[in-house]
Order: sequence, then C-alpha cells, then structure tokens
Amino acid sequence: MLHTHIEQTEEFIGRHIGPNEAEQAKMLEVVGADSLDALVKEIVPNNILLNEELDLDPPASEAEILAELREVASQNQVYRNFIGQGYYGTYTPNVILRNILENPAWYTAYTPYQPEISQGRLEALLNFQTMVTDLTALEVANASLLDEGTAAAEAMTLARRASKSKSNVFFVSKNIHPQTWEVVRTRAEPLGIEVVQGDEAEGLPECFGVLLQYPHSLGGVVDYTELAEQAHAQQAIVAVATDLLALAVLKAPGEWGADIAIGTTQRFGVPFGFGGPHAGFMACKDALKRTMPGRLVGVSVDAQGKKALRLALQTREQHIRREKATSNICTAQVLLAVMASMYAVYHGAKGIRRIAERVFSSTYVLNKALEQLGVKVVNQSFFDTLQIESEYADKILGIALEEGINLRNVSKNSVSISLDETTTLFDVQELVDIVAEAINAETIDINDLAEQLVDIVVPAEFARKSDILVHPIFSSVSSETDMLRYLRRLSDKDLALDRSMIPLGSCTMKLNATAEMIPITWPEFANIHPFAPDDQATGYEVLFERLSEALCEISGYDAVSLQPNSGAQGEYAGLLAIRAYHKANGQEQRNICLIPSSAHGTNPASAALAGMDVVIVASDDHGNVDVEDLKAKITQVGDCLAALMITYPSTHGVFEERIVEICDLIHQAGGQVYLDGANMNAMVGLAKPGVFGSDVSHFNLHKTFSIPHGGGGPGVGPIGVREHLAPYLPGIVDEQGQLDKDSVGPVASAPFGSAGVLPISYVYIALMGAEGLKKATQMALLNANYIATRLAPYYPILYSGRNGRVAHECILDLRAIKDTSGITVDDVAKRLMDFGFHAPTMSFPVAGTLMVEPTESESLQELDRFVEAMITIRKEIEQVEKGEVDAQDNVLKNAPHTAETLLATEWTHGYSRTDAAYPAGVNPATKYWPPVSRVDNAYGDRNLVCTCPPIESYQSE
Amino acid sequence: MLHTHIEQTEEFIGRHIGPNEAEQAKMLEVVGADSLDALVKEIVPNNILLNEELDLDPPASEAEILAELREVASQNQVYRNFIGQGYYGTYTPNVILRNILENPAWYTAYTPYQPEISQGRLEALLNFQTMVTDLTALEVANASLLDEGTAAAEAMTLARRASKSKSNVFFVSKNIHPQTWEVVRTRAEPLGIEVVQGDEAEGLPECFGVLLQYPHSLGGVVDYTELAEQAHAQQAIVAVATDLLALAVLKAPGEWGADIAIGTTQRFGVPFGFGGPHAGFMACKDALKRTMPGRLVGVSVDAQGKKALRLALQTREQHIRREKATSNICTAQVLLAVMASMYAVYHGAKGIRRIAERVFSSTYVLNKALEQLGVKVVNQSFFDTLQIESEYADKILGIALEEGINLRNVSKNSVSISLDETTTLFDVQELVDIVAEAINAETIDINDLAEQLVDIVVPAEFARKSDILVHPIFSSVSSETDMLRYLRRLSDKDLALDRSMIPLGSCTMKLNATAEMIPITWPEFANIHPFAPDDQATGYEVLFERLSEALCEISGYDAVSLQPNSGAQGEYAGLLAIRAYHKANGQEQRNICLIPSSAHGTNPASAALAGMDVVIVASDDHGNVDVEDLKAKITQVGDCLAALMITYPSTHGVFEERIVEICDLIHQAGGQVYLDGANMNAMVGLAKPGVFGSDVSHFNLHKTFSIPHGGGGPGVGPIGVREHLAPYLPGIVDEQGQLDKDSVGPVASAPFGSAGVLPISYVYIALMGAEGLKKATQMALLNANYIATRLAPYYPILYSGRNGRVAHECILDLRAIKDTSGITVDDVAKRLMDFGFHAPTMSFPVAGTLMVEPTESESLQELDRFVEAMITIRKEIEQVEKGEVDAQDNVLKNAPHTAETLLATEWTHGYSRTDAAYPAGVNPATKYWPPVSRVDNAYGDRNLVCTCPPIESYQSE
Repeated sequence: MLHTHIEQTEEFIGRHIGPNEAEQAKMLEVVGADSLDALVKEIVPNNILLNEELDLDPPASEAEILAELREVASQNQVYRNFIGQGYYGTYTPNVILRNILENPAWYTAYTPYQPEISQGRLEALLNFQTMVTDLTALEVANASLLDEGTAAAEAMTLARRASKSKSNVFFVSKNIHPQTWEVVRTRAEPLGIEVVQGDEAEGLPECFGVLLQYPHSLGGVVDYTELAEQAHAQQAIVAVATDLLALAVLKAPGEWGADIAIGTTQRFGVPFGFGGPHAGFMACKDALKRTMPGRLVGVSVDAQGKKALRLALQTREQHIRREKATSNICTAQVLLAVMASMYAVYHGAKGIRRIAERVFSSTYVLNKALEQLGVKVVNQSFFDTLQIESEYADKILGIALEEGINLRNVSKNSVSISLDETTTLFDVQELVDIVAEAINAETIDINDLAEQLVDIVVPAEFARKSDILVHPIFSSVSSETDMLRYLRRLSDKDLALDRSMIPLGSCTMKLNATAEMIPITWPEFANIHPFAPDDQATGYEVLFERLSEALCEISGYDAVSLQPNSGAQGEYAGLLAIRAYHKANGQEQRNICLIPSSAHGTNPASAALAGMDVVIVASDDHGNVDVEDLKAKITQVGDCLAALMITYPSTHGVFEERIVEICDLIHQAGGQVYLDGANMNAMVGLAKPGVFGSDVSHFNLHKTFSIPHGGGGPGVGPIGVREHLAPYLPGIVDEQGQLDKDSVGPVASAPFGSAGVLPISYVYIALMGAEGLKKATQMALLNANYIATRLAPYYPILYSGRNGRVAHECILDLRAIKDTSGITVDDVAKRLMDFGFHAPTMSFPVAGTLMVEPTESESLQELDRFVEAMITIRKEIEQVEKGEVDAQDNVLKNAPHTAETLLATEWTHGYSRTDAAYPAGVNPATKYWPPVSRVDNAYGDRNLVCTCPPIESYQSE
Repeated sequence: MLHTHIEQTEEFIGRHIGPNEAEQAKMLEVVGADSLDALVKEIVPNNILLNEELDLDPPASEAEILAELREVASQNQVYRNFIGQGYYGTYTPNVILRNILENPAWYTAYTPYQPEISQGRLEALLNFQTMVTDLTALEVANASLLDEGTAAAEAMTLARRASKSKSNVFFVSKNIHPQTWEVVRTRAEPLGIEVVQGDEAEGLPECFGVLLQYPHSLGGVVDYTELAEQAHAQQAIVAVATDLLALAVLKAPGEWGADIAIGTTQRFGVPFGFGGPHAGFMACKDALKRTMPGRLVGVSVDAQGKKALRLALQTREQHIRREKATSNICTAQVLLAVMASMYAVYHGAKGIRRIAERVFSSTYVLNKALEQLGVKVVNQSFFDTLQIESEYADKILGIALEEGINLRNVSKNSVSISLDETTTLFDVQELVDIVAEAINAETIDINDLAEQLVDIVVPAEFARKSDILVHPIFSSVSSETDMLRYLRRLSDKDLALDRSMIPLGSCTMKLNATAEMIPITWPEFANIHPFAPDDQATGYEVLFERLSEALCEISGYDAVSLQPNSGAQGEYAGLLAIRAYHKANGQEQRNICLIPSSAHGTNPASAALAGMDVVIVASDDHGNVDVEDLKAKITQVGDCLAALMITYPSTHGVFEERIVEICDLIHQAGGQVYLDGANMNAMVGLAKPGVFGSDVSHFNLHKTFSIPHGGGGPGVGPIGVREHLAPYLPGIVDEQGQLDKDSVGPVASAPFGSAGVLPISYVYIALMGAEGLKKATQMALLNANYIATRLAPYYPILYSGRNGRVAHECILDLRAIKDTSGITVDDVAKRLMDFGFHAPTMSFPVAGTLMVEPTESESLQELDRFVEAMITIRKEIEQVEKGEVDAQDNVLKNAPHTAETLLATEWTHGYSRTDAAYPAGVNPATKYWPPVSRVDNAYGDRNLVCTCPPIESYQSE
C-alpha cells in the first residue's frame, strides 16, 4: 500500500488528542457507548446535530502549514516605525523571549486562582504592580488591563464611581491618542455618560472626571499640577494616560496630582504584534483601590504564617458581583505583564532610566536638527515625539516610505515622529536626511550636531526628581545568568500544563502545540505596527480573512470581528451589536437582557456595561433553563426584550434539549440570542450556533482554538454574527482617528485586537481540518464522560442530560460530603496539589461542587491518574466521616503540604509524612512540591499589600 | 551628555559577566588587589602579557549582531536536498526543537559524571542506546560518537583490538561514503594499519576487519550474511556503516552477522547544520563491549537499592587509561543524541516504521517512473537512494538546480537521488519531471503510476521480520502533551546552569547567552546540506572567514581549521599536522611526544592515535613542569622529539612562569609545541600562544567561546597553527570523494565539522569585542582568586603561582581531611547536591582534591552562596573530626538526600531531617531535590545493563 503525503498530514490530529485509538476503544467500553458517533448522538440534541462535515481545507502537516504561513508572513513588510501613537519599537530581551514567551512553563499556565501553585507568576505580577506604582507615583496598581483604550474607559467608570461631582460629563483631552478617544466614547454612550473632548489649556468644563495624556499623543509635555488642582476643586477625578518609559525622566502623575494613571506597557519589551496583545495598566490612589477594576495581586500569609501571594479583593469582580461588578473585565494580559515586569527587572532602575534618557536625547538631537533645517516643530516640549507642520508633509511621508520608514500621518500638513529604544543616531541621521530632501534643503550632520550639544537634560519643570524603581528587585539582576535563573526559579514554583492536567471546568486547558506557537515570534508577524500602512500588512490581511472564514464555517455565522481582545470584551461587543441593531430598527426601548441564573457572572456584567438591564431566568431541577419561567419573563418584559444571553452547552455541562425552542421564543418576541461561546469547544464540528438559532457569539480563541492561557491572559474573543448584525460589528479607527462606521465604535485600541497571537488559532484549525476539529470535540465529550462514569460511584455527578450523559465537563457534587465530614471543595482542591494536580473549578456554577473538564488533549493515563487521585481522596474523606482521623488534623485540611512542613523534626499529625507527600500514584522522584502552604485569603484582604514588600520583611522571617 | 548608540553596544559585556562594577570592587578588596589590571599583572607572566588590545570589531549589541547575522544567513540558499551521502532531510518535531534544542535546562547541562543530578539526560541516553541496539539487533550501544566517519575509524581500531587475526589489513568496501573512507584512511596511517578499499562482491582479502555500508552509499542493498560468515571464518571482525531508518524495514546487521554497526542518527530529527553536530553511534556484540570506545550509560542502583543510571565502564576511557585508552574520544554528542532518541520516542515504533515505509515507497515509485522513462538506474535494490547512469547526468543536475533542488553529483555520467522523511509525492513528481526534461522525454504522472502500484513491499530477501523498538518507552507517547511532559519531567531531574553554578575545573561552564543560541535554528543555517554546492553556502563561508580571523587574532596563530568536532579531535588534528610537517622536512623519525605528568589523559591518548610515543615529563613541587626534567627528556629523546603537549595555564590552574623558556627549549631541539587550549579562556585578550611560543593549539569553542555543553556534547575543537603548519591542516573532501590536499586527510566526516553551532561562538565574540573578551578573562581570574582567597582558611589551595595567585581555577586539597575524618571528595561533592550545586571536578588533576572554576559569568551572590556552602560543609566535616557525629552516619556520607529518604517515618540518623535538607543558604521554597540517592558505580559495572530495563522491573520495586 502506498503511503502518500496525504496520510502524513493527519498525524497532528493524534498529537493533539490525548488517547490513541486503542485507548479510545477502552474508554468507550467504560462509558458504555459503541462508538464516538453513537456517544455524540446520545449527547447532542438531534435537531442541532450537523449531518455534514465542515467545509475546511484538509488537515495540513506541521511542516506544511508552517511553510505556508511563512509565505503568508512574508507578505507583511517590516518597516522601521516612528509612528508612535501608543506603540513603540522595543527589544524583547532574548532571555525573556526564549524563557517566557516561548516557554510552556509560562505560557500554558492558568490564571493564578490557586495561589499555592502559582507563586511564581504571582511574584512576577507583584513586580509588575510595583513597577507601575513606582513609575506613576501612585499607591496601587492592578495586573493588568487589556490595552490603553479600555484602560481609559475603565478609568472613566472608576472616576464616575469615585467622584462626588453631580456632573454627568467626562472631559477628554484633545491630546489623547485617537483610538483611545473612540474606545472611551463607545464605552460612555450605553452608560449614559456625556464625554466632551476639548483642549484642557482652555479650561475645564464642569465634569466628574478628566482624562489627560502625558506626554501628549503628538509629543507635548505639560505640567498638569494646576489643572489637577482645578479639577479636584470641583470634585472631579483626574485620570491620565501615560507612558511608563517617559515617567523614568518626567515628573510622575502622582507627583503632580493625578488620581488615576493608565496606559500600556508594550514598550517594555513586548513586540508590536500588529496591535497586541500587550498589557494595559491602571494605577490609582489608595482611596480608590477597592473599586478599581482588574486583577490585583496581594501579599498574604500561608498556614505557616509565611509570606505568600494571591489575588486580592476578588469580591469586586464580575464573577461575584455580576451586574454590579466594577467592570466586566475577566482575563488580564498576564503573559505580557510578566514580560514587561521582567523587562524592568532585566534592565533595572539604572537601565530603564538610561533607555529613557537615550530616547529623550535622540529626540532632542532630532529637534535641534529640524530647527536648524528651519522646519516647524509644533510641540515645544517633548519626550520622544515631535510633530512637524509643513506643506511638505506628504513628501516627507513618501520619501520615508521609500526608505522603509513609517512616520505618523497626522493630517495633510503634519507628520509626527516618535523615537524609541531601538532608535540609533544612524536612524536620526536618516530621518533628518529625509526631511531635508523633502524640503529641498541641505542635510545636517548629526554627529557634528551631537558633539555641540554637551548638555542634554530634561527641562527642570518636567524632570523627575524622585528615584525610580527603588525596590531591590529592580537592582537584583545584572547578568543574563541571574535573569535566567530567576525566571527558572519562578516558573518551577508553578504548576502548568507542561507538568500535568489542569482539569478546570469551562476553561478548556487543551494542548497549545508548539507548531502553533512558533509563528508568533517571527519578525514578520511580531514587528508590524498596528497603524502601519495597509499595504505593509497584507500577510495579516490574508490571515484574518482565512481565519474569519474558518470561524464562520465552524460557527454558522456570516461575519466575524477579530477585534475583541478577551471573551468578556467579545460579550460586550456582541451586546453592543444587538443594541445598535435594535436602535437602527427604531426599537431603542429594547434594553432588557434575559440571563439564566446559572450564567457566568461576566454575562450580567457585560450586559450592564452595554446599557442593558438584567432579568434573571430560573433553572429547573436538572440545571436547564426553566422554559416556563423564560416564557413568563418574555411576557413580562414585553417589547423591552433586547436579548437572551445563554451559554451553550450550559455552564452545568449539559446540552439542553430545548435550545432551538428557546431561541425561537426569543426571536418571536423580537429579541436577539447571544450564545456565549465559552463552551464552543463542545460543539465544533457537531453543531453550529449560527444555524440552530443564535444571532451572535464570541469565541474564546484562548480556549477552543488553542491560544494558551498565558497564566491568565491574553484572552482573545472574536465575535461571530448573523448577516443582519454584521453592520454593527466594532468599528475600526485609523491613524488619523477616523472611524470606518458611525454605528458602533471600537471596543479595543488596536484595529484587530490581539492580532499577534491569531496565527496560533489559524495553525490549529489548519492542522486539524474538519476531521480533526470534529474528532477533538468528540474526544472532549468522551474524556468528560469517562471521568463522570468512573467518578460517579464516589462523587455524585450533579447534572446530566438525556441518557445521563454530560457534555464536555462534569460537576462533582461535594455538598453531601461537607455535611458528613466537614471536608470542603477547598480541602479537596488543595489536596489535589499534593498529587501534583491543579484543582478543578471550585464552586462554579454551583457552590460546594467541583467542575471538571479534561479536554480532548489528556491521555487515558493522565485521566486515570486523576481519577485515582480523586478516589484516593474520597477514601481519605471516608476516614474523616468514620472518625478514623481527626476532623481538623488530616491530610485534607492541612493540604497542600510543603516539603518543609513535612520535614519538621517534631511530627504531631495523625498521619504519616509519606501519606501526606506521596499518596497513591505519586512518584517521589518527580513529585511537584508546592512552595507554600494553604494561603489565607481573608488575611490578605484585611491587610492589603499590593507591591513587593521590603526585602527586610523577608529577611526577618 | 549624549547617550549614543555606541554606549548601548557594550551592554552585553555586563550581561555576560556575573559581578557588576560595585561587586568587582568588593571582590578586589577581598583578594587584595588594586584593580583588575593589577591583579592580572600579578598572575600572568610579564613576558607573555599583551600590551595592546585585540584588533577586533567593537562590541555589537544583541539586536545589531542578530540583524547582521540574518543578513549573512540570507546569503545561504536553502535548496531541497536529495544528495544523501549520510545526510538526509528530516523534520525536527517542534516540541523537541523548542523544549530540548532551545531549552537551557537541556543545552546548558554538563556531562553526566555526577549521576545523581543527571538522571534525566541519562534516561534519554539510555533510550538512545536502546534504540540503537534494537534497530541494529546488536547487544550493546554507546551514547554517542562524533559522526559516521569517526565512528567508522573507531570501529576499525575496535576491530583491531578484538580480532585474533594476524593480518594488518582493514578492508573497506567501495560502497562506503567517500568522506568515511577518507576519515578511516587518515586514522589508519599513523597507526600503521593497512586499509584496502575494494568491492566485497569480489571476495575479501586476508584482513582483521571489514567495513561495509548497508545500504550502500549509492543505494544498493545486499544481504551480507554470507560475506559475514567468510569474514568470521578468517577471524575478521565485521563492521557496517548503516542507517537506522533503513533498519526499520531492512534485516538488521545483527541478524545477518555484523559484529559492529556504526552510523549517524542525523536523520532522526537533527537538522543538517551544514554537516553537524549530529550524534554518531556504535553498537556491537556483547563480547566487544568492554573495549568499545565512547560513553556508555548503564543501569545501577542507588544507596536505597533503587534503580539509578550512570556512565558505565569508565575505566576504558582516556582520562583513566591515558595512552592505553580505547580511544581519545572525550565529549560525545549528547544534545543531539537526546534529540534523536526523543525523535524515536515521539514517533514510536509504529511511526518510525511508517516513516521508513514512506521513504521506501516513494523511492519505489521514483524507480518505477525512471524505469518507464527508460533511464538506467544502477542499483537494483534500494531503500532510499537511486543511482542514475546517463549521458544527461549534467543536464539533470543543472535543471534540478534551477528548480532549487540538489542531487548528488556522482561522476560525469552519474547522479544519485536520496529520498527522506520530508519527500512528498509532489517532490517525486518534480524529480521525474526534471529527469524527463533532461532526457527530452514526456514525463510520467506519479499519481497515475502510484495507483497502479498496489503492493509496494520491501523484497523478502532484505525485509526485516523482527519487530522494531519493542521497549515500551517507544510506545508510551502518542500526544504532544505526553511528549512535552516527559521532556519536562526528565529535565527537572537534572541540575544545569539555568539553576545554579557548575563550578567544574577546566570545564568553563560560562553563560551560553540566548542571543548566541538564536541563530542556530534559523533555517538558513540549519537546513544546508554539507555537500550542497559551494555557492549555496556563501553565508557559511562569510561566517567561517570572520570566525577564523577572530580566532587568529585572539590566539596569535596564522591559520585555523574549523573541522575538528571536539577538543580531543582538535588535539589529534594538531598532532597530525606536526607529524606531517616533520615528515615533509624529512624528519619522519620524530615520533616522541613529551607530556607533563599533570596532563589531561586525553593528551597521551591523542598522541598515541597520532602514532606518537609518549614520554612523561615530571612536575615540580609547585605543580609546574620540572624544567630540569624537561631538559633531560629532550636530551634523552634526541632527534626523535616530535612535540611537547602542554596545557597552559596548567591543569593545576597556574600560569607557569617559564612557559616561554619551555617553548624555546623544544624549538631548539627541533620539536613543535602543542599548547592545549583547554584553558584558553584564561588567556583571551591577555596573551597569545601563537606569539609567545606555541605552534598549534585547539580551542574548545564549547568552553572558551560559549557553545553550551549540551549535557556532554557537542564539543567543537578548531585548531589554530602558525604559518609553517598551515599546509598540514585537515583536508576537506567534496561530494565526489576528492580530497583538497594529499598531506593530511580529514578528521571528521563533514568538511567544516560542527558548522551548525559555529554561529554561537561568532555571536559571542561579536557581542564582547576586544574589550569584553579581555574583561571576561580578567573576571575569570578575579572570580577564581576570590574563591581561593575565601576558601583558603578552610581548605588548602594546592597550587598557586607567583604572588600566591591562582589562574582561572583553584584546587582545594581535601587529602588531609580524609585522613582526619574519613570524608572524601566524593562525600563533599555529593553533599553539595543537597545545597543545589553541581560538584567541582573531583580528583583531577590530583586525586583527593576538588578543582573549582567559577568562570566570569557567576555573580558575587552565587560565588558567596558556594563559598558559604563549602564553609558549612567544612564545619560538618569538623563535627566528624571531633567525633561529634558518627563517622559513617552523617550528612556527608549519606548525601545526597532525596526527599523520600528524608520523609521516612522512622528517622534513625544522628542528624535532623532539616539539617540534611536545608543546610545554610538553601531556600526551602526553591530547593532542588535529587531524584536518587548516591549511585553505586561498582554495582553497575559488575552487573552491566545498558538498555532500558523491562517495565516490569520498575513495577516490581
């Protein structure tokens, strides 16, 4: 038989899917199904089950798709960029590139909700917060936000919550980046906030908040001390979009009176990526911290009283406060925040200051040269950006392009030039030559000029006088060896997918294959500025088009927007589309969003942000939407019905049988169906929401389509819509601030959101093809049902669908156990760490339960290891139930066990050291040791510390 | 002050060097020197100390040099290769690429001499041996050899040792790769072995050994059963150069009677790299194992009786047996062997067989098509290679080149085509089209043809009937997730530079910077076939030229050969040059090599291989060469003096004052000076051996010039020579087997040895510049003297030079301690593991001592951590001396301590668990845990097991 090329291309499917053919057969036997197809038929409602294969290219081999993508990438043209506008050239230190961005120990980690096994990235994020607070001179910073534009929008809503002003006006400086303005404007409208843009130099209107940019988008630097006083006098909150690198040499916002500082940390070593992902930040005064959105890492103590880190103040967040949350923000940009914080650790206080001084000095020299050329520079003050006004602006731009250089096209008669870390004097010379040529003047020799300029210093009125990055962590590293070991030490503390299964319900921790990761660091994808001329991004265009087409085919929708840079952002964008659609149809009154009680808290939070009121629909005893209650609520809200938001398969891990009927009911009442795509991975290849009744969904590319979780971000949340909603997808802003449509504004700063990581999903889809994608879904169902079947005798499975089957995840009910033994889901979750497992999702969607999602990527061996661990734990619980061990002093309550606690000279526990350390199935030679004991969350929230503690506090331990 | 571009470029120097300026000042104070320059003057003899800076380009920044090198790389042209001749296209599985080749946990590890902290790579190497023995059907395999050519040469000398034949003839088949023939011929000459090349089909001459190739270099497959019988009948040993992939479908050498099989594992996932590095292999019958060269991993037990791996039968090796060693082979190709073994684990038995079948099937189809075209294929049998005889050979080659395809140019009327894993049916079609066009015939549709060929099977006479890769490890992995976790699990067992200092004397474990590693996996460097036409390797040519120039400038030599692919190979090549020089001068009688008693055992082994007799020169009480004895030996050997081999600074870590005088003495007596460059890192920028008196040296690029040790290879050992030796550098063979000179043949298969990793050293030199290289040397001296100064009160420093200074390393004398306490260097070495340190070099060059070389890359903090560990250990020894703790039951004798032993329920030791686990300075949260207790070497050698034990043997534990 001829082994053809074709056969080889299917190999990846088996690489992605954990169990091999023989194991699949065994598992089918255990769950009692004849075949994968038969199992699927038992699970997926017949009226939504696809009869045909997806129409996608056949699966490619890894080598093929990478070769093809290299060709696509080569259609992008990497110019030198002086565009600025919030995105600047930077060097990713190679040691960080290889050992964070390209290292699975970092990129496959999950959000650090389980602090005991996340101390490494929590420390990196605490460094991030410390870096931001230090540079902004504000008291508290989060880690992190999605980008500068959404951070600005969050600052607006924070200001509104915090200000005592009665005004409904939010004042936005004209000096802000145009894309930030559009994101803020979009966000304000549904919330009924009046945003006013103007020149702050002409005085402030009455307002509850002010948003400035420092330095200005086009370069100017202004001391805002007085303005801040004026704002405060009228009880307005002062927010400022700022640039951390500039703050190394400019007076910090906290020093001139800002209440909130926001921005992006992109230029701290994170590549352009055509706009993202990058970590946005927010810092604020201490008084505002409890209402600040986003993730906040705090210092607490563990059960031994030792310092330990964990996420603080989670009660503010959308998964707890639902529509009353401070924001719908869910994922952060952890991987990028880690990179940016490590950039600061790598360069240290001195290095960051030196980089900032170099940028300023280069700009100073450029300014002098332009002056000597007689060119008008609009801004008298600057850090890195000069705005030129000239009738030859077009010519300057054109000659620059010929030289492979992008400048910012401000307007017909104006260009601006932003310098950065990568700018050399040779670049400055070239820029001067270009301008000279354009205006037909003789050029100026930069070296001659530079020699005359003996004393380049930031003008005293703007200069920072305080030290920067004063915490010792920012002077602890000088050599690459130090840096490498620090990164290794941190990552070794954490448990990521490269060591064991992370069976988190709804979070879909599937394989992030290496082949998928490889293209994202190719220069042709990494080094494209989001506002580079279109013809330089042809490769990205091809990628977007192919990816969008595939997503449409998979989902049954007609159009896709790749802009939303998180799942929650996608929800928001989807609801905005529904809102705009109703408005366009003269149905502005439709402002009620129905949401089932089992929904993830982000749903109501997003609805609230989109200006909708939330009405909850009850669940029945089986965890399904109570259709009678739904009907009642539809009747009740009448023509105010805007939408139903429903997760499918449900957050209970079940394919509800009546989904088509539910969609029909909504449509009949004039509403739209938003189908939350969080569980889309249970449907790919089996059912298409765009076909069976939904109008819009977001796709979690970081779950279903293999973008890694990055330790808690980036998330990527494109939305798909049916034809009638297509006109209402998020708008796109160009470099001159022009929006491509007036119906809906952008929901993110960059036109295509986190474009830089989209190759991951593209490669995943190409490697799997229709066949592989369907198989992955089927195997996700089999793996989940295998676990449910094997664990059902030990832990009741809370919900199941027709035929007693679960979908892609199952909920283990531990409520009875708590009654009989006092053992909680927390205890079980922490005990799993002793086995080297990350815990399943705790108490969501039902308190007192564990939700397990194995994904298709886990092998039978790993599933069995997990099942055995859970059975062993059940036996340990039984000992408590029977009173054989103490109810408080047992392996569960004391979990996780660090090596240090187990090596205590005096052993006072009612169980052995080895029972604690090496429960069944744990290999002593490869055991993962948690670095801290159980972390005390309440203590940390009571004693909030969100920056690196002084070194002495460690030494005194 | 203007911060210029220039300033930025020096940043890397500080990244490479551990201590920053402030720390350097502190350290100078501790050692009592005013400045680095002053310290150097105290150490380096005045008459060799350079007065001027090296003439090199100024230091570049990481971004600059990578950009520049991208430009150089782009001058290489990546064609599709069907050349074969020992090098075949292959796909490195991406998960292996990223997580081994690009992962510092693997590439910065040292040779696994300390087995307790090397179990991960030892397991990978045991897999390698198991793979080789399985595929060759022989009993024992080593891990690994340098390449196929040197492996063939080693097979010849092994045959000579093993054969009882009185013949001096070694028969080499004409079907061998031409480069292999030349390497064997070169090796045979100084040893006085007569090599005869011929056609084995015409019968064998009387000989002690036979070297066959299976399949033939030009494709044929012959069943050698009968030939092997004939050879055995005359007591000749049958060695065969073979191809592991072919053996997946062809009858194995061990099955048809071969005694030895050798070859390369390149096509198991290791890129071309223009010739290397790749792992060679050797397998042999059980009876030959104790005289087999190279590293051999064996299974033994640890102090708890648990299975543990370690290097076996080390007593055969050159560092013990010196000139009587079985080979001068020192470094292996560990990193590449690990990759190849993981390729087999990744694909598994089924996958490897499928790949082999695909290659065979493609070749079968190609053969049929050529047949239909009426083209003459010379070989009737084949696995992957077809030799075409045609008057249009030139035209075929030419058209192929136009299509970006390389074929093998066999002779005027012959080309050959070798297919491989990467060959698709599209490629086959293109090949057929090319041949058709060349002969002016209509082409054949491969798909049509393929459909007719329903039953492609390897002819029964050659077909392998036995199963392949039967050990369960080769069916343990199916998904990428499994593979990733296996790699992580193994690397976590090992202690490499990414976690802590490896203070090995003479081994120079300095930083292997990420920027240096990045270019080696660029396709333009990785994917060039070593026998590709010259004009496709212009980038490599530029690289070689610049690197050679820099090495000449640094060393003071006039010419360089980059061919030797290990330090020992460099020694050998250097001695061959000396030998050829004497011969050319009519001084053939000069065959004595003087070697100081302190020399590394590889020196005498290399001399013996080069056909020289060794005479030992005594050392004086200070560890220096006893010049009087040297004079006496010079007189004694008279006009037989060929060379002095001397390591400088000496293996005692001292700059001998009389080096110039010593060189003069040798020259006056008509000899040549071979200065062993093992310690070149103590001289770079300070002294030039080529200027102060040496004639030839090798440079350990894997030590001095930052190529990582890779866990025990690749080593890279170019040699530099003065003008008069330049004609005698190793020869270069082209694809037609032509040698570029007749004086000295090649010492390695590939023309430029391990070309693929040379970018590492090139980038290192470019980043450091003259200033950085000198600074690195100075800091290596300061770091070593700092350690010597701080430890001298606790451990006597055995040797020092003028002013009591050591050079770049120091020897701690523990002999007295052994007398007073019974604690040995082994005990101290193993106890250091409890602190998370790799041991220094044990008992070399003096038994009972530890040699410490910190290198310039270790920071003061790390040096202090090591010093504190050694002081703590000294106190622990003192307790033994004083009888405060038991002489046998103490933390030293029981080291290293695994977590498992420390968690024993019954604690019977005279010290606490925490004293064992967390001695001073060890942070419990980040402690490294050795996976096994102390390994029993003697047990393993007595009970030799060199393949993976059956799974049951683990389960029964």
